[in-house]
This record gives sequence, structure tokens and C-alpha cells, in this order.
Amino acid sequence: MNPKPISRFPIPDLESLPDDLRERIKAVNEKSGFIPNIFLALAHRPDEFRAFFTYHDALMEKESPGLSKAEREMIVVATSARNQCQYCVIAHGAILRIRAKNPYIADQIASNYRKADISPRQKAMLDYALKVSRAAETVDEADFENLEGHGFDEQDIWDIGSISAFFGLSNRLVNMSSMRTNDEFYLMGRVPREK
Amino acid sequence: MNPKPISRFPIPDLESLPDDLRERIKAVNEKSGFIPNIFLALAHRPDEFRAFFTYHDALMEKESPGLSKAEREMIVVATSARNQCQYCVIAHGAILRIRAKNPYIADQIASNYRKADISPRQKAMLDYALKVSRAAETVDEADFENLEGHGFDEQDIWDIGSISAFFGLSNRLVNMSSMRTNDEFYLMGRVPREK
Amino acid sequence: MNPKPISRFPIPDLESLPDDLRERIKAVNEKSGFIPNIFLALAHRPDEFRAFFTYHDALMEKESPGLSKAEREMIVVATSARNQCQYCVIAHGAILRIRAKNPYIADQIASNYRKADISPRQKAMLDYALKVSRAAETVDEADFENLEGHGFDEQDIWDIGSISAFFGLSNRLVNMSSMRTNDEFYLMGRVPREK
Amino acid sequence: MNPKPISRFPIPDLESLPDDLRERIKAVNEKSGFIPNIFLALAHRPDEFRAFFTYHDALMEKESPGLSKAEREMIVVATSARNQCQYCVIAHGAILRIRAKNPYIADQIASNYRKADISPRQKAMLDYALKVSRAAETVDEADFENLEGHGFDEQDIWDIGSISAFFGLSNRLVNMSSMRTNDEFYLMGRVPREK
Amino acid sequence: MNPKPISRFPIPDLESLPDDLRERIKAVNEKSGFIPNIFLALAHRPDEFRAFFTYHDALMEKESPGLSKAEREMIVVATSARNQCQYCVIAHGAILRIRAKNPYIADQIASNYRKADISPRQKAMLDYALKVSRAAETVDEADFENLEGHGFDEQDIWDIGSISAFFGLSNRLVNMSSMRTNDEFYLMGRVPREK
Amino acid sequence: MNPKPISRFPIPDLESLPDDLRERIKAVNEKSGFIPNIFLALAHRPDEFRAFFTYHDALMEKESPGLSKAEREMIVVATSARNQCQYCVIAHGAILRIRAKNPYIADQIASNYRKADISPRQKAMLDYALKVSRAAETVDEADFENLEGHGFDEQDIWDIGSISAFFGLSNRLVNMSSMRTNDEFYLMGRVPREK
Repeated sequence: MNPKPISRFPIPDLESLPDDLRERIKAVNEKSGFIPNIFLALAHRPDEFRAFFTYHDALMEKESPGLSKAEREMIVVATSARNQCQYCVIAHGAILRIRAKNPYIADQIASNYRKADISPRQKAMLDYALKVSRAAETVDEADFENLEGHGFDEQDIWDIGSISAFFGLSNRLVNMSSMRTNDEFYLMGRVPREK
Repeated sequence: MNPKPISRFPIPDLESLPDDLRERIKAVNEKSGFIPNIFLALAHRPDEFRAFFTYHDALMEKESPGLSKAEREMIVVATSARNQCQYCVIAHGAILRIRAKNPYIADQIASNYRKADISPRQKAMLDYALKVSRAAETVDEADFENLEGHGFDEQDIWDIGSISAFFGLSNRLVNMSSMRTNDEFYLMGRVPREK
Repeated sequence: MNPKPISRFPIPDLESLPDDLRERIKAVNEKSGFIPNIFLALAHRPDEFRAFFTYHDALMEKESPGLSKAEREMIVVATSARNQCQYCVIAHGAILRIRAKNPYIADQIASNYRKADISPRQKAMLDYALKVSRAAETVDEADFENLEGHGFDEQDIWDIGSISAFFGLSNRLVNMSSMRTNDEFYLMGRVPREK
Repeated sequence: MNPKPISRFPIPDLESLPDDLRERIKAVNEKSGFIPNIFLALAHRPDEFRAFFTYHDALMEKESPGLSKAEREMIVVATSARNQCQYCVIAHGAILRIRAKNPYIADQIASNYRKADISPRQKAMLDYALKVSRAAETVDEADFENLEGHGFDEQDIWDIGSISAFFGLSNRLVNMSSMRTNDEFYLMGRVPREK
Repeated sequence: MNPKPISRFPIPDLESLPDDLRERIKAVNEKSGFIPNIFLALAHRPDEFRAFFTYHDALMEKESPGLSKAEREMIVVATSARNQCQYCVIAHGAILRIRAKNPYIADQIASNYRKADISPRQKAMLDYALKVSRAAETVDEADFENLEGHGFDEQDIWDIGSISAFFGLSNRLVNMSSMRTNDEFYLMGRVPREK
Repeated sequence: MNPKPISRFPIPDLESLPDDLRERIKAVNEKSGFIPNIFLALAHRPDEFRAFFTYHDALMEKESPGLSKAEREMIVVATSARNQCQYCVIAHGAILRIRAKNPYIADQIASNYRKADISPRQKAMLDYALKVSRAAETVDEADFENLEGHGFDEQDIWDIGSISAFFGLSNRLVNMSSMRTNDEFYLMGRVPREK
């Protein structure tokens, strides 16, 4: 069977893109060795592309005492799995494996985070992320108290909920455009890197 | 009963904000006569504030042949109602009344868009927006065919789905922060403006 | 677009109605200045009309120490919103604004009662009403204890649950008949009455 | 184990009741040989009692060319089963067995009406009744067309939906009061009556 | 109306069956006086037939201090009702009536086990069985603690969950094959046996 | 963090097992190079162990013209993912990769089978498997017609539904026992085997 296209929507030619988009895409290509399809799939809408990655980086390229980069990726994988977002589960599963230096954790969280090798604190973090994802209208003060009891502060709680909410947007964009997952992601972080 | 605070999270002092945020907030205050709370509630995170409003404006401050500004607001109201987002339903209900020049339409769509005074084309638009909001994992080619049968083109369909997805993010931020709705929105667009 | 009809089902001529129905309809018209469509939509079934309004008045035209008329309307608005009943949300939203002398409360409760300017006692009342509406099979003694802890007595609890259950009937009749909301309700209770 | 009480709410003494309630209860006792608990459980609220049984009789004590009394009971059993209403399933299951002269039909419909020995026309009737019960907000013109294709007219459709909606009220009253089912109902209509 | 067939799938001739299947079917026929349709409906797949009844008997033909045979049937009826499995509810309802020597209990549990004449311990047992049936992914240590607090030990808890899980398989086979319920089950255990 | 135990329930010593169980476990160990935890987790119940694997092999160790072994594993992965069964998704994901000789297919199907690189025929197969898993009570003749239109015959349809139903049992056993996934499964079928 022929592989499906990158997206149901147009993929512009790289040369036709505004300079900042082209530079960003070149940079990620140099760093990763390939262009993750999300960059190509959003490029036909430059302003949305810019906003999307600014938002993404503000939440994900951040390391705080209360919330490591690996934990941020756990949130992405857990909520994206529940939203049945193929690209997000597989691509961020790869990043999670690398950031957590753990080849098992992404598949565990994607299939059922409650049974994964995570701490009670991380379990509470994912419970809250899923609540924001599936029933945000019922979030209340008891959720804050529970998370604070696990050592998360107000800024962490904002981050957890915002990552869940932002990837809810991403999950929907991916599903509505049938965005294809790059083959490169499947194996990343599963085998030791060659020196 | 005392009114609840603007947000469960910090509201920074306007003077402490980066210039571009303060300018944007001043501009909206001058135009509207008040500061919608969403601007204050996101200000403690300048990068997220910038990304949020860039994304918002790219989708909502646009008028295309296939999708009027009023129709864009219909999508916001219908999906936000289903997500039980008080701020979004009431604030964008106000904008919808103004843009549609119709004092009834927002309450109709918020309570049950299927029974609202809208065209079959608009009904199909909202059906799709709700599908992206509630079950994006099942979107498929039949949805595109149906929307194209109602005269929407590919760019319109991207917009409909993206507005639904973006406000899903907004709805979750509002609910997780218990963001308060400004009193000014409730009556906007319900009575003829005085000259 | 032409306004939709009052109901998918027949609307009898006022003159053809049994005397008691015609008198009731005339009375409400004199009091309100218009005939709420629910009276017209049920009139083709006189016995059902009589039973409906007897039941309605027994639960709603009652003021008890534990449950004010405004609180009764809160229950109607909260449960009807969840059942997506346009007529009930808009018409009883109007009555709630008037009875609570509060132009904001109906829209707050319709969109998300958990975030509305209500007391913890009223929050518990609406939680119970929604439970009866959506999962009555799980009501148990713990619900009674919780409500009694908020000062509701047995008769109040009967009223809360019965209002929720009765308007569940009303919501379904409205939706199955696509009953139209009178234009007069939208603005009622939003602006100070002229003297 | 001691049998549970008739209701979580007060059961008034028969002698203390208004005359019309006492007469109605005496009449049903004479006809059935026992007092179905619903009569006792609603008696503490005479106006609601009157409205309830007026509504009930208007919908259920009616035989029309399009909708037999047995079919009306099928609707009650199918919708009450889905609402998990013990009293309604068992009591109206008894009445259905008697009216349909079929000792199997009630248990079939209560457990899964789609697999019951009913006609395609009756299957369409129950599909619609369940739609009104569970998702009335989505009822639309296609439902009417489908039912009319099965030979139901507008008055039948009103009846089907109203019976579903009315017993939704009844189901919720029963569940919120933990109303006990009379022992007499369980065997009724299962064995040939002795002469 | 003609009765529906035993199954949507083939029913082999008894004489064509492997010896062990034919013997088992003859034995049950002698004991019960009829052949329950599940034996006929699975017979076209001898290995599956053997596995199914081995599994069934291991869980159901067992009497332990913590879990009586009647209680095991309660689990079957409660979970099968929620899965809308006609054959399982009616056939195992009959067995439950006989094993519990109680003509009312099966209908009570099938319609709403929370309102049935059962002990708090049995209520906890059924709550857990339903949780395994509907949301097994959320089972956690708190469930074990709760059941142990009611006097169930680890082996009982395995049994409760396994019965729920095994009949989930059975329920799906029955529904996918539209397996017909034998007429004999409906009345079993409802009337005293003749001597 | 210490790895979690193989199961919340007892794991018997291999030497204490009945001969047939020990032989089966030894055989799988020799073939696979490790003992999949499901064999250990069920061993404390020999009859259930025997029935489980007899059923499993009857459905999965079969290759028919209409349903390949790889397609059978697709059904397991798709339904187990929806039931959030970690062990089943990861272990059968490995088997699927090997049988399909495709390192991508398991992760695609686990995250959202609708977007996987499968044929329309396989999509119809998985739609039906999920329907049996989530809403078997609604399976009807239209499902058979649809599958037959894709070239599946009656025996294939039995297999598809039975695999879905059987793994529903397996998924619930795994979740209720918090069965741990063997580390060996994660990488199987992702990289070419060394010669």
C-alpha cells in the first residue's frame, strides 16, 4: 500500500515560504536529520505556524524545578493517546523516551498511564492533565489542593493544564488533516545511540 | 456575594508588562471601553499571550467568501457551549450578536444550535465543528465531501476545524483558571446602540 | 431567513380550545404581554396541557424557607442547559433573572453553573439536580446526607429532584417538537424596567 | 434481609389523604388486588399526584389505530430499562405481558429490545423512543420521515415521544426516592390465569 | 411473528459433533429438560466450545466461603444487564432465582442492582464487577482495600473480576450472534416447584 | 523506581504447577527466549489457564483465506488500545509487527486505526471489532452486509467478533491484576533480526 500523504491539506514548497518559516524548518532538519511533518503541515498558514510553535516552545522548551522536560512529554503522550492522535503519540513518545532516557515509558503511558512505571506525583500530574483534557468544566479547588499536596506549585499547575489544552488543539489539527507520522519517530530512543 | 476574582492564577500589574502586551491591552480597552478578562488572565505568561492572540486573530479577524466573521463566531459559541466555557459563550455570544446584527442568534446557538435560525449550510458547518471538538479522531473523507456539497472549500474547512480546535484550547484555559466573565458582555448586541 | 414555526406539531386555534385552556392562555397573555409558546404547543392535547401546568405550578409557584423561587429557576436553567433545550434555557433564564434580580446569573448558570456566582449551598443543589437529570440510578443516601449538611430538608430535596425530573420531561417535549422560543424572553430581566 | 421501605420519602396515612386521592387508590386496589407503590409514594404531594396520573392516563389509557396499548407499554419498558428504573421495568413489564398476551416480551425488551420478537415497525418505534430519552436534542426531520415510512402518523409520533419523556420523569422520581417494587408484579402475566 | 432462529451463525447437527460435545449437551439436556441455546450456538466451533465451558465451570461451579454460587450469578446478571445481553440476563436470572431461592432478586438486579434487596457487601461486590466491566483500566489499590474491608479475600476478588470479564466475552458472543433465549428460562425459579 | 510486580495476584513457583502448565510454559520460553507474563499471571488458576490458552489458540493460531494471522493481531491491538490494556497493546503490537513484517503498523493502529496504513477492507474489519467491543448490543444485519461487501464470509465475521470479545476478557484480566509487560516485547519487530 502506498504511504498516505503528509496531510489532507496543502503542503507548500519550502522555497515559497516566508523566511522565518523556512529558517525554522531548516534548523529542525539539521538538528533532527529530517523534517517532522507537523512543520510542513502547518506551513500553508504562516501566522498559525508561528503562533503554534511559539506556544509549543513556551510550554515544552522549559525546564522548571517542579516539572522536567520529560514530565512535560509524559503529559503530551497521555493526553494525545486519549485523543487518539497518531502523530502526537508516536512523535512525542520518541521525545519522551529520549528525555526520560527510558525506552519503555512512552508505550506504557500511551496504553494506560495508570499502570506505567511512574511516581504517585507523576500519576497525579497525569490525572489532572486528563481531567483538563476530558472534563475541564469540572476542575475545581480540590484539584489544586491535591496537586499542591504532591508538591506542584501554581506555575506547575498552569503548565500541566496548558500543555494538556495546547495538545488538545494539536491533536485536533492532526486528526482533521490526517497528518502522517514520519517513519523516523518509531524507533527513536528505543536503542542505544551508536557512538 | 462578592464577585469571584478574574482568575485563579496571578493577574500582573499592567505597568509591569512587556510593552507589546501593555499596548495591546490599552488598544482593546480604548476600542471596547473595558479590558476583556482573557487579556489580563493570560498576561502573566507573555509568550503564551502573544501566541494565543496571534492564533486567535489569524482565525477570527479574517473574512473570506466562504466564511463570514459572524459565522466564525457561531463556531466559537457552539463549541464553547458544549465545552461549558462560561467566558467564551458569553463574550463571543456578544461578538456574534454584533457581527450577525441579530440579538437572538447567540442564545439560540449556545443552547442548541440544531434548533437555531441558521441555514442548512451553517448547520453543516457547526456539525463539523462539533465533530472536531468532540470526536476529531473519526473525521474522515465523508466529512469533506459533505462540507464541499454545502459550498465550503478546503480553506474554509481548515478554518472551521481550526477555530473549533483553537477554542477548545481557550475553553480549557478558561475552565482551569475559573476565568471570570466581564459584566459588559452580557448586554452587548442585545439592544440598539444609542446614537 | 423566515422564523421557524412555533412547533413541528399542530397549533390549534384559540377559539377551538376548551374553556379552561383558553382562560389560562388569556390570563398569561394579560400578565406577560405575550403568549409563551409552550402554552400554544401543548394546547392540541388538553389533558396533557392540564397535567403539565398543574405539575409545573406545584413545583415552581411555591416559595419555601429552604428553596426560593429564584433557586427553583436556577435548577431549571442548569438542567435544561445540559439537556440542550433552547426554549427552557432562554424562557426560564428570563424568569431567573427577574426572580433573582440579577441580570448575569442565568447566562452564568446556563454555560457552567460550577463557575457561577452562587453559594456553596446552591452549588450542592445544582450538583444534585444534575445527578437526578443525568444519572438518577446512582442517587443514594450519601446525596441526602450531603444536601442535609447544606441545610436542605427532605421536602426541599424532593423539590430539587422533582424540578429536575419534570423539566427533563419538558426539555424532551420541546426538543422533539422543535418548539420555538418567543422573542420576548431574550431581553427580559437584562435591563431595568421603565417606570 | 428486611425488605426496604416503599420510599425514602413520607408515605401518608390513607385516611389523611384528600378524597379524590383516596378514591383513586381504593379503586386501583379493588381492580388489581393491591396498591401499586407509585400511588403511595406520590400521595404526600396531592397536586403532583393528580398531575402525574392525569398525564399518565392521557398517554397510556388510550388505544389508537397506530399505537396499541401493548405498544405503549413496550415504550415504557424499553426506556425505563435504559434509565435503570426498577419499579417501572418490573411493574410495566407485568402490564406489557398482560396487554401483549405474551409472557416473554417484557424480559426481551428490558434486556435488549433490538433482539426482541418485535416487528421492524416496533423496532423503529423503540429506536425513536430511546432517542427522545437519551439524545432528544438531536431529533430532527429525518426521524419523522423514518417513522412515517413505518406507518406512524403525527399523533402517534407525539405519543411515542411523550411516553418516553413522561416515563423519564417517572424513572427519575422512582430512582431518587428508591421506590420499592410490589412483589405482586413479578409474576403477573407469566402464567395463565386460573379460572 | 415467527420466533427468531437460535443464532445468526450455523447450528450443527448433534450427530455431527465430536463425542465430548455431544455428551456434554446430552448431559445438560437430561439435567435441565432442554438444551440451553448457548450450547448449540457454540457447537460449530468445538475448541471454542470446550474452552468456553471449561472457563465457565471453573468460575461458576465453585462455592467458596467468600462467594456463594448465588452471588456469582448476581455478578453475571448485573454485568450482563449493563451489556444488554438478553440471553445472559434471562438465563442466568433463572439460575440466580433458583440458587438464591428468591423469585424477586434477578429482576431487581437486572433493572438496577443499587436498589436491590442485597447486603452492603454484595453491593460492593457488584460495584467492583461493574467497574471491571465498564472501566477496568481504572481499577486500582483502593478497590482492593474497599473489597477487603467488606471481607472479600484476594481469591474472591479474582473471582468477582473474572466472572465479570468472562461474561463480558459471553455477552458479546450472544449479541453478535443474536443468540435466542430458550422459552424455558423465563419462568424458572419464579413459582414453587411441583412435587 | 523499582519495576512493579508481574501481577497483583499470586505467581506460583513453576515447580509447583501441574505438568501440562509447566510444559506449556517451558515450550514458550524456549521458543521466545522469555516467559510472557500472561502465562505466569494465570498459572495460579490452572483450569482458567487451560481454557484461556485453548480459546486464544483457536482464534489466533489459525490462518484462513479471509483473515491472516497479521490481521488477527490487528484486531487485538485495536481493541486492546481502546480498552487501555498495556500488556495486550505492547505484547500483541510486537507480534503484529513480526507477522505483518511492518515496524510501523502496531503503533499506528494502537494510536488511531482509522489513520493507519491499512486497506478499506481492514478498516471495515476493525470498525466491526470495535463495535463488538464497545457496543455489541447494537450489532445488526447491516454489519454483516457491510463486511460481506468487503469479502469477509460468515466464518471470518465470527472470528473478528470473537477475537474482539476474547481480548475484551483478556484486557480486563490484565487491568484488574495490573499485569506487567515484559521488557522484551517493546523492541520486537522494530529492527531487522540479526543473522
